[in-house]
Amino acid sequence: MSRNPIRRIWAEGGAVLNGWLSIANPFSAEIMASAGYDSVTIDTQHGAIGYEGMLGMLQAMRASGVAPLVRSTWLEPASIMKALDAGAWGVICPMVNSRADAERLVSYVRYPPRGCRSFGPTRANFALGGDYGAVADDEVLCFAMIETAEAMANLDEIVRTPGLDGVYVGPADLTLGLTGRRYRTGFDREEPEMLEAIQRIMAAARTAGIRMGLHNGSSAYAARAIGWGCDLVTVSNDVRLLAQAAQDSVAEVRRR
Amino acid sequence: MSRNPIRRIWAEGGAVLNGWLSIANPFSAEIMASAGYDSVTIDTQHGAIGYEGMLGMLQAMRASGVAPLVRSTWLEPASIMKALDAGAWGVICPMVNSRADAERLVSYVRYPPRGCRSFGPTRANFALGGDYGAVADDEVLCFAMIETAEAMANLDEIVRTPGLDGVYVGPADLTLGLTGRRYRTGFDREEPEMLEAIQRIMAAARTAGIRMGLHNGSSAYAARAIGWGCDLVTVSNDVRLLAQAAQDSVAEVRRR
Amino acid sequence: MSRNPIRRIWAEGGAVLNGWLSIANPFSAEIMASAGYDSVTIDTQHGAIGYEGMLGMLQAMRASGVAPLVRSTWLEPASIMKALDAGAWGVICPMVNSRADAERLVSYVRYPPRGCRSFGPTRANFALGGDYGAVADDEVLCFAMIETAEAMANLDEIVRTPGLDGVYVGPADLTLGLTGRRYRTGFDREEPEMLEAIQRIMAAARTAGIRMGLHNGSSAYAARAIGWGCDLVTVSNDVRLLAQAAQDSVAEVRRR
Amino acid sequence: MSRNPIRRIWAEGGAVLNGWLSIANPFSAEIMASAGYDSVTIDTQHGAIGYEGMLGMLQAMRASGVAPLVRSTWLEPASIMKALDAGAWGVICPMVNSRADAERLVSYVRYPPRGCRSFGPTRANFALGGDYGAVADDEVLCFAMIETAEAMANLDEIVRTPGLDGVYVGPADLTLGLTGRRYRTGFDREEPEMLEAIQRIMAAARTAGIRMGLHNGSSAYAARAIGWGCDLVTVSNDVRLLAQAAQDSVAEVRRR
Amino acid sequence: MSRNPIRRIWAEGGAVLNGWLSIANPFSAEIMASAGYDSVTIDTQHGAIGYEGMLGMLQAMRASGVAPLVRSTWLEPASIMKALDAGAWGVICPMVNSRADAERLVSYVRYPPRGCRSFGPTRANFALGGDYGAVADDEVLCFAMIETAEAMANLDEIVRTPGLDGVYVGPADLTLGLTGRRYRTGFDREEPEMLEAIQRIMAAARTAGIRMGLHNGSSAYAARAIGWGCDLVTVSNDVRLLAQAAQDSVAEVRRR
Amino acid sequence: MSRNPIRRIWAEGGAVLNGWLSIANPFSAEIMASAGYDSVTIDTQHGAIGYEGMLGMLQAMRASGVAPLVRSTWLEPASIMKALDAGAWGVICPMVNSRADAERLVSYVRYPPRGCRSFGPTRANFALGGDYGAVADDEVLCFAMIETAEAMANLDEIVRTPGLDGVYVGPADLTLGLTGRRYRTGFDREEPEMLEAIQRIMAAARTAGIRMGLHNGSSAYAARAIGWGCDLVTVSNDVRLLAQAAQDSVAEVRRR
Ligand SMILES: [Mg+2]
Ligand SMILES: [Mg+2]
Ligand SMILES: [Mg+2]
Ligand SMILES: [Mg+2]
Ligand SMILES: [Mg+2]
Ligand SMILES: [Mg+2]
Repeated sequence: MSRNPIRRIWAEGGAVLNGWLSIANPFSAEIMASAGYDSVTIDTQHGAIGYEGMLGMLQAMRASGVAPLVRSTWLEPASIMKALDAGAWGVICPMVNSRADAERLVSYVRYPPRGCRSFGPTRANFALGGDYGAVADDEVLCFAMIETAEAMANLDEIVRTPGLDGVYVGPADLTLGLTGRRYRTGFDREEPEMLEAIQRIMAAARTAGIRMGLHNGSSAYAARAIGWGCDLVTVSNDVRLLAQAAQDSVAEVRRR
Repeated sequence: MSRNPIRRIWAEGGAVLNGWLSIANPFSAEIMASAGYDSVTIDTQHGAIGYEGMLGMLQAMRASGVAPLVRSTWLEPASIMKALDAGAWGVICPMVNSRADAERLVSYVRYPPRGCRSFGPTRANFALGGDYGAVADDEVLCFAMIETAEAMANLDEIVRTPGLDGVYVGPADLTLGLTGRRYRTGFDREEPEMLEAIQRIMAAARTAGIRMGLHNGSSAYAARAIGWGCDLVTVSNDVRLLAQAAQDSVAEVRRR
Repeated sequence: MSRNPIRRIWAEGGAVLNGWLSIANPFSAEIMASAGYDSVTIDTQHGAIGYEGMLGMLQAMRASGVAPLVRSTWLEPASIMKALDAGAWGVICPMVNSRADAERLVSYVRYPPRGCRSFGPTRANFALGGDYGAVADDEVLCFAMIETAEAMANLDEIVRTPGLDGVYVGPADLTLGLTGRRYRTGFDREEPEMLEAIQRIMAAARTAGIRMGLHNGSSAYAARAIGWGCDLVTVSNDVRLLAQAAQDSVAEVRRR
Repeated sequence: MSRNPIRRIWAEGGAVLNGWLSIANPFSAEIMASAGYDSVTIDTQHGAIGYEGMLGMLQAMRASGVAPLVRSTWLEPASIMKALDAGAWGVICPMVNSRADAERLVSYVRYPPRGCRSFGPTRANFALGGDYGAVADDEVLCFAMIETAEAMANLDEIVRTPGLDGVYVGPADLTLGLTGRRYRTGFDREEPEMLEAIQRIMAAARTAGIRMGLHNGSSAYAARAIGWGCDLVTVSNDVRLLAQAAQDSVAEVRRR
Repeated sequence: MSRNPIRRIWAEGGAVLNGWLSIANPFSAEIMASAGYDSVTIDTQHGAIGYEGMLGMLQAMRASGVAPLVRSTWLEPASIMKALDAGAWGVICPMVNSRADAERLVSYVRYPPRGCRSFGPTRANFALGGDYGAVADDEVLCFAMIETAEAMANLDEIVRTPGLDGVYVGPADLTLGLTGRRYRTGFDREEPEMLEAIQRIMAAARTAGIRMGLHNGSSAYAARAIGWGCDLVTVSNDVRLLAQAAQDSVAEVRRR
Repeated sequence: MSRNPIRRIWAEGGAVLNGWLSIANPFSAEIMASAGYDSVTIDTQHGAIGYEGMLGMLQAMRASGVAPLVRSTWLEPASIMKALDAGAWGVICPMVNSRADAERLVSYVRYPPRGCRSFGPTRANFALGGDYGAVADDEVLCFAMIETAEAMANLDEIVRTPGLDGVYVGPADLTLGLTGRRYRTGFDREEPEMLEAIQRIMAAARTAGIRMGLHNGSSAYAARAIGWGCDLVTVSNDVRLLAQAAQDSVAEVRRR
């Protein structure tokens, strides 16, 4: 039977180490999918990736065994449903700010009667198993991103949305949303109010019995997040890994 | 003058035989467009097809003389208007569940004062004729998919929406919507309540003076649907035709 | 520091000459970007261009120094934010018909606390400067298209929307919207009521202290529009330029 | 029966007016194919076009009725045979410098026993007719480019190569080849020795009973070439037409 | 350790059932790769497939476990080496007509000192195993196509070329080459001289201790070929399977 | 005037630090082009890159100011000339094994009367300057790869080929070629005979007055190579940088 590898890791008590893709290329996706991550997310929101790019990357990563996820472009039915039909094992939806948003999100991810996802798993049938249609509602993962002041205000309602599997925290947007332009943009926050916000989200998720994911800019912070009890941690992305590695390599030659 | 071939077939009392494309490739589209269908629909909802794929397929099918249709990704203005500007002779819109939905759909397909379609038929001007802008409102086809319990409840209002040309039934979703997980998913329904639902939709369409289309999984069922009076029947799609033909071919060698 | 070239031209009292792209090709974009325009707009609404096409064109135009703009597919957050993340210096949004529409538009273009744009300028960081995140809210341009009867009725409220940089007039849609099918479709209107409508929009923009752009079909009309005080004028587009030049070239050979 | 439109025009005593494509885009190809040319050549040698680009352009031009030709990348079997299998009605081969070159060229274009073209007209079967395999040897056109000093020295032998349909003159290379860096590069030569060279090639072709084609930069020169008796004249290309039209359009606005 | 699945099947005494791809699409490749074939060949010679198409198809088929092969465009080093670097487990080279041709072919497929393949298995390292560089010379398959009169004349020398793994027969070209235009083109020959030629090739291969592959148009003929002792049989291809299945489906509806 | 940045660096006595691209993506090319390299080479030989990929990467890198180079697929005229027409400032040609090979290479890179490059710098005209045609012969760089035993035997003749600008050493192939399977494959050789071979090539180049380039796997080795007097050193490539950085990042999280 077709099973989502992420659910298995969680069932065994593990934390999921997630990679992140912003370059629209099947070969770089293959490279990233072989690096040791448990899951890899194709970012169609901020990544330089459209539908065709996402599809080729899902195809190229299929052999790897890592669980493919997609960050949808927005809380839009076509973006979410097309990613699932194309063979993603779950979606991370940006900017889920209210209980109504979260209910819409769940409805796009689940078939009737649980939701309003339209039936037609054209590639998922091939990539995730012939029994996909039967198991999808139980296996596909649905993450709501908590990354605005509004979402924080509605947090307790959001996490209790039936059918939601987890929340995912985008620290760059959350910092902008909670503190405006006071601090630098980016991940790996150390400001007390941001640390507190992250802990509050984790606690809310735990209380509601759902999962918590965190976007991180460094391995060190990701490891800390696992220590806090995060269920899924993302470390860096293909753009930053490549840019940093290339700059380091150049600097090292120039320095010598 | 630029004319929609489907309207001509209907004017002559014929039923339209429609092909269905879920593989994003101009050559497979060319192959399908030469197989004898009257119209061929590019499925941008559940097909593994984005905008670029759709465009290349519309270009490759132009020489065939079959009427190109597009199933839009959702009830979204950009998806619908871009398909029409790219040269589709009509759209099939999924999940039209209410009179308000149907009115929005029509408004996206017709220019002011009938609707709010924005003017700029960039490729349609080349592919469908230099007089496209003048005739589009009369020639372009607009189908609303009836495939949920909600749509069935609002059926009589939906079919009477001014400017709607037809309804199109997706049996997989309709079965999920009306009966939940009781039956297998898929087309070619034989359950009495599903047969009844299809007949009810056909009767409502006829009463309202609009057309009825049905998605079918087999030639046999499509032929039955024509017998019932369906105006447009889809038979299978490129994915299923190719998968089945290849599997049969392999089985035949292995069996010998 | 990273600066929008259009703002510089305006600061110096100039009018911006804008090119327009409807063919999804990086090389034709490079050719157009070297023709002498100040800015070039990639039309993802009516152009035959999807996300992948737009991205490649933005990359190919980067070296030219012209300011890249994108006409979004619609008033949709994903379309607008993805264009900005991909490196456009501004968006022209079609069919902004009310103050509420205009406020949504602005909110998609500005980061919190001014708006709700999500943070992740993946390619803009590389293409527009490493300080993009800090300066984007001040540099990125946000144009609302005024092209319907409803927009004209709400004009004074729209132009006063905080954060809106300008209005952009699409004469083809505006003519359809204001006068229906009475006149030919297209640009370069000479009908008194259309000339009056354009002047009314310009006056409203000036009163509100924002910019005015106009889409033109000919150099002569564009020059007139500059004379009227338009801040940004578009002349023709790649499709019309190529089609006309080819037809003229053929006619000239045949004539001899 | 499947027929090459160029042979029909010649049979009726006409000269063929040929368009030229260097931008790898199906839509610009569609635009050019509707401009009134009799044939349109996709330039895979100097055009910014690879195999995938060529294929999409052949598909997009199929509906126009113009005869699609391909300039091959070089005198290479794969380049030539793949263009023909993809549905070109002929090839123009660059840098044919000797009788041996010309014989190789013919052999790549004709099936055994006339040549060594490998059988598998995968798309030609769909695009050019089901009887393509039977008629290809008689219908497909084979042009050798005469554009070097060596080719001029071997001209009389080249034109008499059995199976060669015509020669095609590239004035830019021919000028470089015959006169080195003495003159500007480009088409539309007026130098006496270049005019003489062109006339010599035309006379040789006529004596051998084959066709003569000439690449031109302007309609005026193309018309002159028809007057000289050229059987096929190319006028400009998509890159120059677009670049010039855009520059003219910009200049006209700036001038006013 | 990285192993070629075809060699394993042969080691177990089986015959390899091979699929054939002429449509440049990763999804149709995925569909075909799940149909039950042991190996699937991407035809870059006559298929409508360039390098980019081939690469995406290799990536999409990786998960299936079928052995990916590539028919090269011609006996050209770049075509052959790039296919292998991209992750093909073997090449089928068209038009190998002499011992010298066969030796060149082998040299392109084997690293020094056995051949002159250049080292850089960029994607093969990821797709076929980290030890690819060490095992490639023993695992990669090298087939020479016997399909001309010249090849038949040199058959005994060709099959004895050290490093050659097998011959592959293209009946369409072989029939043209041996009998000219006397018979219809195509596969599944029944003419006595063609049957004899095929048997002669099989006998030569067997004597030399190498493998024999045959291209077939039908399952029935493929099964016969296995009966004759063929080691690898191809049945039909994606284009024919899809075209035939669609035409049959249409005919069945029209007939009822 | 259009100038090759590499020649400027050399004129100032500097060594060129070269990046290397094997992933066919314009965005990863943009990222690499901003990392601080002086030149960046697109590897169409072993990289997973075809013509279309190369073209988009050249376009995306244009803004960076780094000098774009291309490693050609092989010593083939189309591969080399198309790369130059597309805007590369030079080619690195693999497997140049004899004086005749080197002369062919030079002839493909230089226009008559120096060589036989065909004239048509379609994109180079836009990307490298309007005077490209006039300066190309003096500015474009032509590197021959020395990487086989045969090339070593002919080294002194190769380096003296008129018009050759430099040699480039591929240590993986050179090691296979000189020592067979005795040592591991790869770069950064420490075996005495390999160090000696590299020194011998450098000395030959210096004697002949041409440049020496070396492919390196690490910054440390590249720095050593500069110390030896190498004129151009390549460090790593996008595939290795990304793969290593991702693996390190994963390992670091797992370790904590
Ligand atoms: Mg965010
Ligand atoms: Mg449905
Ligand atoms: Mg408009
Ligand atoms: Mg030439
Ligand atoms: Mg063959
Ligand atoms: Mg090498």
